Amino acid sequence: MAVYTEVNDEELARFIAGYGLGRLLSYKGIAEGVENTNYIVHCESGSYILTLYEKRVDPADLPFFLGLMEHLAAGGVTCPLPVRDTEGRNLNMLCGRHAALITFLDGVWPRQPKVAQCFEVGRAMATMHLAGDGFSLSRKNALSLAGWRPLFDKVAARADSILPGLQTLLAAELSVLEKSWPRDLPQGIIHADLFTDNVFFIGDALSGLIDFYFACNDALAYDIAVCLNAWCFDTDFSFNRDKGRALLDGYQAVRPLNALEQKAMPMLARGAAVRFLLTRSYDWLNTPKDALVARKDPFDYVRRLRFHQTVKSISDYTGDRQS
Amino acid sequence: MAVYTEVNDEELARFIAGYGLGRLLSYKGIAEGVENTNYIVHCESGSYILTLYEKRVDPADLPFFLGLMEHLAAGGVTCPLPVRDTEGRNLNMLCGRHAALITFLDGVWPRQPKVAQCFEVGRAMATMHLAGDGFSLSRKNALSLAGWRPLFDKVAARADSILPGLQTLLAAELSVLEKSWPRDLPQGIIHADLFTDNVFFIGDALSGLIDFYFACNDALAYDIAVCLNAWCFDTDFSFNRDKGRALLDGYQAVRPLNALEQKAMPMLARGAAVRFLLTRSYDWLNTPKDALVARKDPFDYVRRLRFHQTVKSISDYTGDRQS
Repeated sequence: MAVYTEVNDEELARFIAGYGLGRLLSYKGIAEGVENTNYIVHCESGSYILTLYEKRVDPADLPFFLGLMEHLAAGGVTCPLPVRDTEGRNLNMLCGRHAALITFLDGVWPRQPKVAQCFEVGRAMATMHLAGDGFSLSRKNALSLAGWRPLFDKVAARADSILPGLQTLLAAELSVLEKSWPRDLPQGIIHADLFTDNVFFIGDALSGLIDFYFACNDALAYDIAVCLNAWCFDTDFSFNRDKGRALLDGYQAVRPLNALEQKAMPMLARGAAVRFLLTRSYDWLNTPKDALVARKDPFDYVRRLRFHQTVKSISDYTGDRQS
Repeated sequence: MAVYTEVNDEELARFIAGYGLGRLLSYKGIAEGVENTNYIVHCESGSYILTLYEKRVDPADLPFFLGLMEHLAAGGVTCPLPVRDTEGRNLNMLCGRHAALITFLDGVWPRQPKVAQCFEVGRAMATMHLAGDGFSLSRKNALSLAGWRPLFDKVAARADSILPGLQTLLAAELSVLEKSWPRDLPQGIIHADLFTDNVFFIGDALSGLIDFYFACNDALAYDIAVCLNAWCFDTDFSFNRDKGRALLDGYQAVRPLNALEQKAMPMLARGAAVRFLLTRSYDWLNTPKDALVARKDPFDYVRRLRFHQTVKSISDYTGDRQS
């Protein structure tokens, strides 16, 4: 949680005036977002999120992220929509940062997701995958297979200071992944970070998806693998097959998986666990203990990875008898 | 800026249900408030601030603070109003903390106040002073004269590590204040912390006052002295007499100062500078460098104090010829 950039009231009033949204009524920095500075902004025309992009975001990626939200919204996905200023720009500068004003999306993210919510997130993700079709821009997934080895090299020497044996575990797992990483899967735009805090609900109904700042082109089924990790483990770190089945059923109600995707799921889930284990290990080793941002515990992903290593087929995620 | 207490979505939904405000639509922790945890909460009926009172607030004071907001609002002051739950309570428990839901007040606080805004804050403060009359509860000002010596004793030994000579400056100033502190001034409820971030404007119009968590019974003119310090120095630390005159003119348009109050103003302003110099020095010495909360620089108040020491009469704050 952090506000990295303090915005001056007069600067902001001038910025808002460029959007023709009526007068600025209030703005407050919000304690969310590890990467960027976010404010809730109330104008006469409604509520918005103002995002100032900080140094971890590559400005060259911003047209992809903002354009994607517009493309998905036009395709029926409920997601925040960048507002265009009176000259048609969805990206501007404020306080020396690239900045966008984005529609405010109501909803609350579930701290402990329920089975029914896993179904809904599966369905929404599949809808998003279909809606991503035809988007004119593309962006490589920098945090897929090719990115893991360089990240491992950066954390390897100190990995055992996080957890004894972590270096060996990661080295062995990377070898497996490099040998067996699934290819020839249906590709498209994936969210790549669809954790619980990026999915909003009002009551039991899913009200929208947010935070597309890791979105990229990759295997669609990899997005499901991220969600198996992010949504389907209980607080005691045991895998919850009811949630796994709900997630996959929800997804396949909109976009059925082909045989290759089904077969690939255990390996994709291992890869997704390694991806978050690596980035969290890196952040754990490189974030000062006194930073404004809470470090996320990498241990959770060791436990997840060890579970996926025992999985033989997609049916182990659903409890269904293998066909 | 800090969110000390993370509130769970289901706990909050249950909490909100007790107020009959419709469904919970969203909540986000805001990066404001040094003392407490604050969330912006959107319900079907509108926007609110949820405050969880952390350890620096004495729960015994909460009925005074919340009751005062109700009393002032009833008296025509625009300020946040505690919402009462369906059983009539304006104070409840959430996540093991005392918690109140408070109406959201639109407005933006001025980062660099203008002369016209100083007039408005003077007028609003005088209106608040009149509206405080008849409030049934009272609260001693723990940070007035009697509280300064004990605070000085806590910082004295290390004061010179903040600024060489600070210990001597404070010791000498405290002796003066203890000998010359004005008595027999009109008393009432004061805000006691009416800094720029506690006064909201929409455009040029003052839209309300917030944060009554230092409010107490004391000399009304002392509140003006706090504002002379908080509003009327320019960014180069020089006193701006146009702002001083505007503040006092705005105040006296509603409640003229009597002769004793006018005479007392320079000494009250010195006391107010010492009060903030002492608490900031204490926080400076006792807040870990890695804390979530930004430490406010005590130096600013050394500069202010030195100016007030040169002031001979209230007319030095306004540039008016002394009558």
